[in-house]
Amino acid sequence: MASESGKLWGGRFVGAVDPIMEKFNASITYDRKLWEVDVQGSKAYSRGLEKAGLLTKAEMDQILHGLDKVAEEWAQGTFKLNPNDEDIHTANERRLKELIGETAGKLHTGRSRNDQVVTDLRLWMRQTCSTLSGLLWELIRTMVDRAEAECDVLFPGYTHLQRAQPIRWSHWILSHAVALTRDSERLLEVRKRIDVLPLGSGAIAGNPLGVDRELLRAELSFGAITLNSMDATSERDFVAEFLFWASLCMTHLSRMAEDLILYGTKEFSFVQLSDAYSTGSSLMPQKKNPDSLELIRSKAGRVFGREDKEAVFEVSDTMSAVLQVATGVISTLQIHRENMGQALSPDMLATDLAYYLVRKGMPFRQAHEASGKAVFMAETKGVALNQLSLQELQTISPLFLSDVNHVWDYGHSVEQYGALGGTARSSVDWQIRQVRALLRAHQA
Amino acid sequence: MASESGKLWGGRFVGAVDPIMEKFNASITYDRKLWEVDVQGSKAYSRGLEKAGLLTKAEMDQILHGLDKVAEEWAQGTFKLNPNDEDIHTANERRLKELIGETAGKLHTGRSRNDQVVTDLRLWMRQTCSTLSGLLWELIRTMVDRAEAECDVLFPGYTHLQRAQPIRWSHWILSHAVALTRDSERLLEVRKRIDVLPLGSGAIAGNPLGVDRELLRAELSFGAITLNSMDATSERDFVAEFLFWASLCMTHLSRMAEDLILYGTKEFSFVQLSDAYSTGSSLMPQKKNPDSLELIRSKAGRVFGREDKEAVFEVSDTMSAVLQVATGVISTLQIHRENMGQALSPDMLATDLAYYLVRKGMPFRQAHEASGKAVFMAETKGVALNQLSLQELQTISPLFLSDVNHVWDYGHSVEQYGALGGTARSSVDWQIRQVRALLRAHQA
Amino acid sequence: MASESGKLWGGRFVGAVDPIMEKFNASITYDRKLWEVDVQGSKAYSRGLEKAGLLTKAEMDQILHGLDKVAEEWAQGTFKLNPNDEDIHTANERRLKELIGETAGKLHTGRSRNDQVVTDLRLWMRQTCSTLSGLLWELIRTMVDRAEAECDVLFPGYTHLQRAQPIRWSHWILSHAVALTRDSERLLEVRKRIDVLPLGSGAIAGNPLGVDRELLRAELSFGAITLNSMDATSERDFVAEFLFWASLCMTHLSRMAEDLILYGTKEFSFVQLSDAYSTGSSLMPQKKNPDSLELIRSKAGRVFGREDKEAVFEVSDTMSAVLQVATGVISTLQIHRENMGQALSPDMLATDLAYYLVRKGMPFRQAHEASGKAVFMAETKGVALNQLSLQELQTISPLFLSDVNHVWDYGHSVEQYGALGGTARSSVDWQIRQVRALLRAHQA
Amino acid sequence: MASESGKLWGGRFVGAVDPIMEKFNASITYDRKLWEVDVQGSKAYSRGLEKAGLLTKAEMDQILHGLDKVAEEWAQGTFKLNPNDEDIHTANERRLKELIGETAGKLHTGRSRNDQVVTDLRLWMRQTCSTLSGLLWELIRTMVDRAEAECDVLFPGYTHLQRAQPIRWSHWILSHAVALTRDSERLLEVRKRIDVLPLGSGAIAGNPLGVDRELLRAELSFGAITLNSMDATSERDFVAEFLFWASLCMTHLSRMAEDLILYGTKEFSFVQLSDAYSTGSSLMPQKKNPDSLELIRSKAGRVFGREDKEAVFEVSDTMSAVLQVATGVISTLQIHRENMGQALSPDMLATDLAYYLVRKGMPFRQAHEASGKAVFMAETKGVALNQLSLQELQTISPLFLSDVNHVWDYGHSVEQYGALGGTARSSVDWQIRQVRALLRAHQA
Repeated sequence: MASESGKLWGGRFVGAVDPIMEKFNASITYDRKLWEVDVQGSKAYSRGLEKAGLLTKAEMDQILHGLDKVAEEWAQGTFKLNPNDEDIHTANERRLKELIGETAGKLHTGRSRNDQVVTDLRLWMRQTCSTLSGLLWELIRTMVDRAEAECDVLFPGYTHLQRAQPIRWSHWILSHAVALTRDSERLLEVRKRIDVLPLGSGAIAGNPLGVDRELLRAELSFGAITLNSMDATSERDFVAEFLFWASLCMTHLSRMAEDLILYGTKEFSFVQLSDAYSTGSSLMPQKKNPDSLELIRSKAGRVFGREDKEAVFEVSDTMSAVLQVATGVISTLQIHRENMGQALSPDMLATDLAYYLVRKGMPFRQAHEASGKAVFMAETKGVALNQLSLQELQTISPLFLSDVNHVWDYGHSVEQYGALGGTARSSVDWQIRQVRALLRAHQA
Repeated sequence: MASESGKLWGGRFVGAVDPIMEKFNASITYDRKLWEVDVQGSKAYSRGLEKAGLLTKAEMDQILHGLDKVAEEWAQGTFKLNPNDEDIHTANERRLKELIGETAGKLHTGRSRNDQVVTDLRLWMRQTCSTLSGLLWELIRTMVDRAEAECDVLFPGYTHLQRAQPIRWSHWILSHAVALTRDSERLLEVRKRIDVLPLGSGAIAGNPLGVDRELLRAELSFGAITLNSMDATSERDFVAEFLFWASLCMTHLSRMAEDLILYGTKEFSFVQLSDAYSTGSSLMPQKKNPDSLELIRSKAGRVFGREDKEAVFEVSDTMSAVLQVATGVISTLQIHRENMGQALSPDMLATDLAYYLVRKGMPFRQAHEASGKAVFMAETKGVALNQLSLQELQTISPLFLSDVNHVWDYGHSVEQYGALGGTARSSVDWQIRQVRALLRAHQA
Repeated sequence: MASESGKLWGGRFVGAVDPIMEKFNASITYDRKLWEVDVQGSKAYSRGLEKAGLLTKAEMDQILHGLDKVAEEWAQGTFKLNPNDEDIHTANERRLKELIGETAGKLHTGRSRNDQVVTDLRLWMRQTCSTLSGLLWELIRTMVDRAEAECDVLFPGYTHLQRAQPIRWSHWILSHAVALTRDSERLLEVRKRIDVLPLGSGAIAGNPLGVDRELLRAELSFGAITLNSMDATSERDFVAEFLFWASLCMTHLSRMAEDLILYGTKEFSFVQLSDAYSTGSSLMPQKKNPDSLELIRSKAGRVFGREDKEAVFEVSDTMSAVLQVATGVISTLQIHRENMGQALSPDMLATDLAYYLVRKGMPFRQAHEASGKAVFMAETKGVALNQLSLQELQTISPLFLSDVNHVWDYGHSVEQYGALGGTARSSVDWQIRQVRALLRAHQA
Repeated sequence: MASESGKLWGGRFVGAVDPIMEKFNASITYDRKLWEVDVQGSKAYSRGLEKAGLLTKAEMDQILHGLDKVAEEWAQGTFKLNPNDEDIHTANERRLKELIGETAGKLHTGRSRNDQVVTDLRLWMRQTCSTLSGLLWELIRTMVDRAEAECDVLFPGYTHLQRAQPIRWSHWILSHAVALTRDSERLLEVRKRIDVLPLGSGAIAGNPLGVDRELLRAELSFGAITLNSMDATSERDFVAEFLFWASLCMTHLSRMAEDLILYGTKEFSFVQLSDAYSTGSSLMPQKKNPDSLELIRSKAGRVFGREDKEAVFEVSDTMSAVLQVATGVISTLQIHRENMGQALSPDMLATDLAYYLVRKGMPFRQAHEASGKAVFMAETKGVALNQLSLQELQTISPLFLSDVNHVWDYGHSVEQYGALGGTARSSVDWQIRQVRALLRAHQA
């Protein structure tokens, strides 16, 4: 009889179960990560049972003591799994029974497997969110430190991979750091919705044995209690939210990685990756591939369409590795200042040339067209934009005067962009102060 | 020459553009929805230009007046699109120039297309979030009203589509309403991140003309200002967040729809959809299909993997329709109380039978097995679980006494589930109070 | 120096590699599945090197012998992984070198890692396709056998979960079996595109050492040779195709599972799942959940958006398990013929009632409306459709005569659907013959 | 009463339908594209009805004539939609009735809406596949022509965006063309599965009126007949397949576009896009953005997760535009041969340097390490790899002799890669012949 195999639903079954089906159904290979929170949840629940009069003080102590022993075995790596342990919850309760006998059978009173699974998952994810938040801020801090230290390096800002305008290198770093601060904000919100106690919801109708859910909440330090028992055991919004958070954060890291891959090519030669974050080729001896960056990018490519525990575990590991690798990459990256400077070219000041005319009173649309004509003239003549003579410029507009020369200074150009959020020194400093304030707020 | 066609980038182009390419690139067919916010953003920006000394007061007034005229034409349906109007921004500025002449060419000074596009999109989405939030609360209110009115109707709670335990019909309604309150909370958070001003970021480097972004923020009532100009013009996190929000909210509506489709089948016969939300078959005269519910479900099936404006517009329309249809369905649904009652069967009280033994001191695991044996015995004998005689039960456990009869009362069963979130009357009332409190908080 | 650690790209690196990065990059935990095909590919390549004069016969024999030894160790479970074995290819070559010395270093001549990885993957997937094809046909055969055996059982056909028309139970089985025959056809096509030799493509430019790719093709029994070396090493169309195939096949299995879950509910009670494919509840003793069906359904829910080796391995395992579980479910399922029969109701013959009028010359649209009126009349009077008197029917249309009684025979109804593909006995027999012919074609 | 509104399910409904629900349900805005195939399908079906004796010859002629008139109105743009025309099928039948009276009501005899929808969709998609196939081959032909014409241009082949080995420019073109030939092969397979007649399946049980499906098949030139009526009306595998095909083909076009975007940057300067496929910036006068390529890339980013008609229409339009734009881009692209040549650098021959040693008898792994040491030595000394003196090389290996100079010839390097699929002239010519053979096979 199936009950002899120790299956939890015991008495009723008379057929044997297809072994492929059993293996298919088992989750122990990945949910063993939950061992600690499973013990934590069971300890709190046994306190709830004692208060409700369903366990005596002595039985509760026996269970608490047994659960501590189970945890100790996991911590020391001596816990032995049985072939019948289909998930971590079954394994822990099976072991508890071996350690303390029949009293172990009282622990599940009024609790359903769904109840227990979702409580464990929320406890584990709450901890994971805290860890990832720490790693994320470590990365942001590294980026801001670097932005501050290299504030005076100029290089081309790109749009559509075309050189657009001169900007500060720090402005580029901060554009990515600022995106990560939003991820941090979102992670806090996800954590808030994870931090809600479902325990005490039973299978579907609730708990009928007078268990005090407020006591359970306090024992497990949850911020709130779920409102409806059916919803509590079945909803996985917080899993979807976490995976979406990861997916968006990965998109940001991926975009940064893409930029750095490009900046590290022979053709751009702006940055050089540390050997610690590169690998070679088994065939081509000269190759040094930006594998760290490519891995970050490729991980983002995964579509996290699943909403299950396995995905949560996998994505958590990935995020943890990616954030640390990204921090390592940023902190060891070398930049080639001269190459950055040499990549600035006069045509990137065509917008400034238009603004020169605007400041002389020409409407912007006309100024844009005039500046475009100058670019075309320079291209046709095969000279740089700043090599056009004043006479040549004046054939386009009489507003061009000798002071047009001041336009061709990259340092002067970036200093114009002084509005909040721009690339002028004062504005970049303001950005650094804003992100540092967020850092301090997070640490408080 | 291409500049004669009036293209904004004017002066430089000498080749003609492939017409397929032009059509491919045009967005006017869907972004015309932005006409109102585009005018709103341009009015604010012209005020910023005036304060920065780039427009005279007279020029600003001329522009403001012209923009009002443009808006009026849209509102009255008299705005005429040109074949060259590739997007709403081009169209509005082209029309402005026709109305007020060359001064129109000053409006775009220091502003990039990206700047303008993202500002418009944020303004439009902010309004949409408010509208959808109202529709969402209207649905929640309808559900809570119904839950309160039909609080004493019992029916089977299902897990895995198997009858599990007797619950209140209101408990089912509230399980879905509670999920929707989370959607409402998330929508507020998304709206908060939409409500940030990007205008004044230029193409990439920022604004070089002294435009006061704080003035722009105040003019457009944004809650904050973007920190970095590169990030501001390129990031679309808020679009991804909105689409994710929609996708999760749709999942909830879809699950409710799935339940109702099932409850409305001949086999379940718990509910009957109003004719206003059903359709017939072109072939089978007797059919009455739950098309409203199926549409809700199928819309959720769409993967919102895109992060573009088109998706935002489409999803907004869908959400608006779905929320209204769902409200209509819930408010007109008839329930068949007798069928609901008749669907309750004694085997659904097997858990209560186990609790009976638990209360007499048996550990739950043994009680679960004993109750399972009773179920098996009843099945084998071909009788209902409550038809087993006391003698028969006592062959399973001597703890069964004549008071076991009290177990077989469905009303008594649900009243046991009095812990917070359960299906007892007191607990359902508590849930209703909690959701009503959220409703009031939202309206305040 | 890094070369001392035995890394393949040896000589150039001077920095140490971040350990998180190394772990992040390693694939040995999942690609060890490739051990056999990796040996197979290397054996073929060493034959190619020998023919090209890059290995002597003696060296080739030494390598072939060493590779056999490596394979033997894997087969016997005695192969020991080193911490530096980042993937199966490194591991096997490292071991070969330990076994036969420096000659091992000649094996990779002119071959790139990409070359080797994609060759191994194609070899492995080709085998997997064959295995899965066998399992798929086993399932189809089981379904057709069952369809033949239970050909005379009638039950309701549903559309939109509403009872639509009486059909044969076999017609339902065949509707799913036919879908699976398309999966089988697609799998063959995917296999054909997998069965193309990439080896001999080098890193990107091709093979410069005169290796005869036709010899490699023949050694490894590939059906064709890739056309372009850049494309050959980078393209993973066949992976995307395989994952899409799996996703579509899973959709079909999932739909069948959904139907069976429903048919197995208390409310439908058409089928009963074997205990071997059910599980119980840890809380509710009476529950018997259709977990096998739910697992099939949930696996289909996974979005296979990745295009990597890990996904291929995971999806292959899933498909293998799912096909076997589905075969087990179908072959052990009990059906409740009486419940099926009792679920047929006269309103499901409303279409036949319309056809009755059509046969008397009424245009179908009018007949549909007339039959709809009869349904409405019966509903209003609270009687079954076949309980309306002839007089009552004649108030709707004078074409109704006493022979209308023949409409109310379910067996007669299904026999009308004799066009190819319909539910008449002759047509179902034709379907069975068609699928059996495909089965035979497959086995040939 | 609802029947007065002309709804097809007429007689039964008494409630009015929620207008939001109606709009939600309507598909006429996008399925009007089906007007021609809907008429075509109806004409075939009326012939089937006539043969089955359900229409007289005169009635059939009346219907055929009426349908021709309907088609004429669509073709001439004079067809007028009614507010009640919820889809193209309703619209056409409504119009037919206006044109020929009650006989129109006989057309739908034994046909269900599902029957008709899926038949129309298959007819339309079959035509679309043919059109797209033609456009795809046009693109491939353009690419092969170009590959042939520019066969002697060398430039760097990249892996991981790092310069890897010298290759022919044609080798790059062909790597993309070859990928597209697979898309062409897949499109044929999809078309084959689209080309199956579902008509005659009714709602679910089949056709009961003796309609000859073989006649319908022949009338509509389908290649086969669906096997099971339930499957036939509900399956949309062919839609999923078509969308997957498009998604894979777009991935290929997207990768080509990504390469070209990069090759067109200032930093690479290998190619220059025609003005016809570029656009400017509204702010920066010098910018010329590769918008055609970016659009191709962004369209690929869309996740085609839907399986509905709307997606099919949208994706078909997108594919048609993308293929034409890609053909235009390729045929007008200018290449900068000198820049391509100058981008070749001696370190890209490090693999050849290793092969030099291999040819002298050194095992490849050692040769790879020796070559890597040479690269490192050159980097350390700050010279190009070919600037190392023979003495310096001999400190790494005594096998280096004066003939090592022959390694530093790019033309010689590519000519080594003569194995099938490689970048040697003979091998590239072979590739061109292979693809041209496929082109001819397609045209035949």
